Amino acid sequence: MRDSFRRELDGVADRLVGMCELVGAAMRGATMALLDNDLVLAEKVIHDDNRVDVARADCEERAHALLALQAPVARDLRVVIAAVHAADSVERMGDLAVHVARTTRRRHPNPVLPTELRGRFANLGQICVTLADTAAQVIRTRDLVLAAELADTDNTVNALHSGLMATLMSPDWPHGVATAVDVSQLSRFYERFGDHAVSLARRTAYVVTGDPRPPHLGRAA
Amino acid sequence: MRDSFRRELDGVADRLVGMCELVGAAMRGATMALLDNDLVLAEKVIHDDNRVDVARADCEERAHALLALQAPVARDLRVVIAAVHAADSVERMGDLAVHVARTTRRRHPNPVLPTELRGRFANLGQICVTLADTAAQVIRTRDLVLAAELADTDNTVNALHSGLMATLMSPDWPHGVATAVDVSQLSRFYERFGDHAVSLARRTAYVVTGDPRPPHLGRAA
Repeated sequence: MRDSFRRELDGVADRLVGMCELVGAAMRGATMALLDNDLVLAEKVIHDDNRVDVARADCEERAHALLALQAPVARDLRVVIAAVHAADSVERMGDLAVHVARTTRRRHPNPVLPTELRGRFANLGQICVTLADTAAQVIRTRDLVLAAELADTDNTVNALHSGLMATLMSPDWPHGVATAVDVSQLSRFYERFGDHAVSLARRTAYVVTGDPRPPHLGRAA
Repeated sequence: MRDSFRRELDGVADRLVGMCELVGAAMRGATMALLDNDLVLAEKVIHDDNRVDVARADCEERAHALLALQAPVARDLRVVIAAVHAADSVERMGDLAVHVARTTRRRHPNPVLPTELRGRFANLGQICVTLADTAAQVIRTRDLVLAAELADTDNTVNALHSGLMATLMSPDWPHGVATAVDVSQLSRFYERFGDHAVSLARRTAYVVTGDPRPPHLGRAA
């Protein structure tokens, strides 16, 4: 029973790690599409999100089967519940990558970003891909230190987001209202992507401590 | 065993209904604070969110205890898992009300909204309070028709959001960039509040049908 529980739990973790890889790739693609104004790539990111949804459904079914057949208790139960929450978070990360891709599609053939902001969004994209990657490692290892590092990295995303908001709110913003609104929403999509990675990592790692109340999970919603 | 399962499940549902009432009140307060530029009320909404977090932790602990002690299977298991997801959604709805309140606080003593948009935000606030209320009823009744009605009502929120975005993207928007960005983010907070209510209602109601894959849950993230 313990062996089969571990094996099935590993199966759930594998699916979650696979989901993290999918949403990391989605965010990489969405950012490239944004920077290169690449409609074909944006469409591909939007289309491929279906794979995240399928993986999530599979992950949930496995978690449900585990609960029903193995009736885990105590820490084992918390680990399974954390996996259910994690699947939620990763699916939302995928949706946020899709939101970035949709913004590119909506403005095409015009580019969304003013040239001087491209560097900052390239940076946001790169860090978010790293966050997805680290989230996968946290799922594998349930390493509290790694979860804390992930939250630290996310602070860089938050700082970039705040900086972008300050830029477009400044009186000498030269690009008009529509571009400012697009940029503010895009920036928030990256910020939320990071928040979900933090939420996932903390919940996943902190089941180790046995605290039923997860620590503050970053700004949710 | 069945009786005690039902009783404990009712306890979880009671907490969820209580959470819906709290976030409905939060959104009502946040909207009033926004419309009246009322800093004290905005602070109260921000402060009171702690009650939602406590209720959510209580709700989760009860759900975990139920899983550990009763080891439910099949539909009973799905109902408990749906409750865990629902607690997530309602907590996020509370966070979104807080985001609205924080926007008011950030701009105070200046009002966030141009006068001519006040009516539309009053409307958004009112519908979102109704959505929180209907979500509570869906938790009580698991009524598929009610869940579908809730999704219909949310379409009004989506339409108001789209309308607001069109207004502030139009070339004759007279209020400048900073106000446009604030309004677009506020509008999105209401839209997301509605999406979470829909997600909760569908997940909660559709456990009845026994479909392990919930129907499309609105735009998540």
